[in-house]
Amino acid sequence: MNFGTKADTICALSTANGMGAIAVVRVSGPLAIAIVNAVFSKNIADAASHTAHFGVLKDGEQIIDEVLLNVFHQNRSFTCEETVEIGCHGSVFIQQAILQLLMKHGCRLAEAGEFTMRAYMNGKFDLAQAEAIADLIASRSAAAHRMALTQMRGGVSKQLAELRQQLIDFAALIELELDFGEEDVEFADRSRLKLLIAEIAQVIDKLRKTFHMGNAIKNGIPVAIVGAPNVGKSTLLNALLNEEKAIVSEIPGTTRDFIEDEIIIKGVSYRFVDTAGLRETTDIVENLGIERSFKKAGEASVVLYLLDERNSNAAETLNELNAFKNSYIKAQQEFIVVVNKLDVNNNSFDFLSDFNPVFISAKSQVNLDLLMERIAAVSAQFSEQQNEVLISNVRHFEALNHAYEDLMRVQEGMNQQIPTDLIAMDIRQVVSHIGSITGAVDVEEVLGSIFSKFCIGK
Amino acid sequence: MNFGTKADTICALSTANGMGAIAVVRVSGPLAIAIVNAVFSKNIADAASHTAHFGVLKDGEQIIDEVLLNVFHQNRSFTCEETVEIGCHGSVFIQQAILQLLMKHGCRLAEAGEFTMRAYMNGKFDLAQAEAIADLIASRSAAAHRMALTQMRGGVSKQLAELRQQLIDFAALIELELDFGEEDVEFADRSRLKLLIAEIAQVIDKLRKTFHMGNAIKNGIPVAIVGAPNVGKSTLLNALLNEEKAIVSEIPGTTRDFIEDEIIIKGVSYRFVDTAGLRETTDIVENLGIERSFKKAGEASVVLYLLDERNSNAAETLNELNAFKNSYIKAQQEFIVVVNKLDVNNNSFDFLSDFNPVFISAKSQVNLDLLMERIAAVSAQFSEQQNEVLISNVRHFEALNHAYEDLMRVQEGMNQQIPTDLIAMDIRQVVSHIGSITGAVDVEEVLGSIFSKFCIGK
Repeated sequence: MNFGTKADTICALSTANGMGAIAVVRVSGPLAIAIVNAVFSKNIADAASHTAHFGVLKDGEQIIDEVLLNVFHQNRSFTCEETVEIGCHGSVFIQQAILQLLMKHGCRLAEAGEFTMRAYMNGKFDLAQAEAIADLIASRSAAAHRMALTQMRGGVSKQLAELRQQLIDFAALIELELDFGEEDVEFADRSRLKLLIAEIAQVIDKLRKTFHMGNAIKNGIPVAIVGAPNVGKSTLLNALLNEEKAIVSEIPGTTRDFIEDEIIIKGVSYRFVDTAGLRETTDIVENLGIERSFKKAGEASVVLYLLDERNSNAAETLNELNAFKNSYIKAQQEFIVVVNKLDVNNNSFDFLSDFNPVFISAKSQVNLDLLMERIAAVSAQFSEQQNEVLISNVRHFEALNHAYEDLMRVQEGMNQQIPTDLIAMDIRQVVSHIGSITGAVDVEEVLGSIFSKFCIGK
Repeated sequence: MNFGTKADTICALSTANGMGAIAVVRVSGPLAIAIVNAVFSKNIADAASHTAHFGVLKDGEQIIDEVLLNVFHQNRSFTCEETVEIGCHGSVFIQQAILQLLMKHGCRLAEAGEFTMRAYMNGKFDLAQAEAIADLIASRSAAAHRMALTQMRGGVSKQLAELRQQLIDFAALIELELDFGEEDVEFADRSRLKLLIAEIAQVIDKLRKTFHMGNAIKNGIPVAIVGAPNVGKSTLLNALLNEEKAIVSEIPGTTRDFIEDEIIIKGVSYRFVDTAGLRETTDIVENLGIERSFKKAGEASVVLYLLDERNSNAAETLNELNAFKNSYIKAQQEFIVVVNKLDVNNNSFDFLSDFNPVFISAKSQVNLDLLMERIAAVSAQFSEQQNEVLISNVRHFEALNHAYEDLMRVQEGMNQQIPTDLIAMDIRQVVSHIGSITGAVDVEEVLGSIFSKFCIGK
């Protein structure tokens, strides 16, 4: 992304692609009002900020559309630049014709994320907040939405800013000692400093550990359905999809369009991992050889082990179940045993009682609500932490990891009484890593890589 | 559609479905400002019309989004009702959360077209103009856009209003005679009246005949590619699609997404009719038995007859070509002979000179521009008539047909000197048919059927 082009006036479609009743084209930059004024039927050159104006956009004598303009003055707009938002009729043809008209008069098409980048460059918000806008737009569940909104409104930034300030103060004290190096003074009480470093390390460690949760909320908590062939895995998935549709969606245009096999339960997104394929192999039950599926199960936060007990015996089933669980299920994974075909199963399942199984019929859609409750229990922890700051961004996660490593080095250095100037350097490293999250450092490559992930028009 | 619900305050997503940088939710009705005010962080109860307000939408304590509101007062909005447009972040989740919040506070979801219907009911524009808004939103080509815009801005309405007024004046004179029936007076000069009726009939006839053209512009001019198997019909279609893409599309998000095999040439849409199927039959060349394809060709405005002359002789080809043209091509259809595989054909094609064929290579994309020029020539007539009023709406077309038939009856009646009161009735019929186009008659069923074709949010 080019950072030397703030003099440009940029334009883009800001609403979703495709046909709608209306669409909004956003124009931002020093000439935004002048350019739009040149093609609009009324004079908006002296229009007050935050006012709307109805009129006609013209290309010479040819009318493009009847539109409603919103005028925003510099420092009062999203980008902090002069901005005009053009509300037009939502045909794709008109959207394109307006963009072409604007380009003819001196605009250029905005790059992805360029509006938000300008807002950031103009000090409207910090980098973590800017990234949260992209997350907010992409959010598909209540939990992801809440998390992004917290971050956008400065939740993450505030917590990091506090840590960073403590470290900067700390570093300043240490560096002061360096200035008096010959005199061997100690401004910074070493034992208090050690305590502070330990505290900060603990906070950062806790914060980086929220990434597992934050990432799961953002991208959906992975759930694997495993089991022998023909126990009804696909039927169960389809039944859950239908169930959720019936429960969740009162308004047309559900969230289903985006990710196949995503289910929102109690505001949290669950991403059902494809475990097909295992059904086609023939040696599945004999050697428990569901290798591909096991790999998927290993990556999932929730594993549904589906049984259909009409055709096998208790001891064998229990053996397989225990073997699977012991071999593949990690402590932090939720393992739920599900007995399917409740309607046609007549066996006793007492032998499964240690597993507290859920009895369902996927086909007849019986007890699916119970199963969804059990799955949702996984995310109860997420709900409890709804007011806490969660890290959901890989870039932030990595910066925190680096910061933590450097903090460990600081701690070690202090224990081994290595020279103060080396410790100061490590602390500066920590400050820099934490600063990179909110953009308190000036690294253009980092910025480019962040904003290019935005959608056009934002 | 319910016409007794103007007291309701309605809401809907007005921008395109799906994720975008921003989305707009429109709220209209007597409580629009009050309802939004109840969930907004600032007081907009006394906000001036056409002003924008940045703040936070809240469901109790829970923040839904940071939004920009546009406030419009009664009689100054699109619907002529109190209106608030909510510009929010464009996640599907947020769109739905806002609609749900509004419904919780007393809005109901708008039916398709309900905003425009309210604008019509409040006298903002007539029915033909309202219908043009739907056409405008659906327009995918410059020609369709221009036609819809003309209609929306009152082009069709004005022409019809003039005709209607002339007829009403005419009827008034005749009816005046009826009042003096006993006295045998003639206020209306019969020969002048006959002339007027003939003139009006001519205008209506001309107008209804523009429907063929208007409809083709709106829905795409149908083009059929016919020919024996393996002459390269599919290759040609794909090549044309690519060619157009390369020529037309400078901006991301082309119009291609909507209709498969639609090609825009010089601002006019051509809809390529599927003539597959004939390729699977085996007896094609022998008996020219491309029956299904011939049917398609019969419906097309343009027929491309594709030849690949490597393997047959001149006389036979000429016979087949003439037989096809004579049997299936009507006078108003454009028949273009296309010789494909220019790159591998070494035959002489002088024998085709009467057909003025286009020589191309679909595979090597040679001379496709020439072929597109030839196709575009068909629509040259449309371009010439760009400032004329075209009828593109089936409902209008049918009303004009009825009006024309009634006018013919008036004419006949006057010639046969049937009683004046019967003539007056027929004239009232004509007036009513023409009036139904702009909604100058009050027929609720007609209204319902029109607005339900709109998209939600308009």
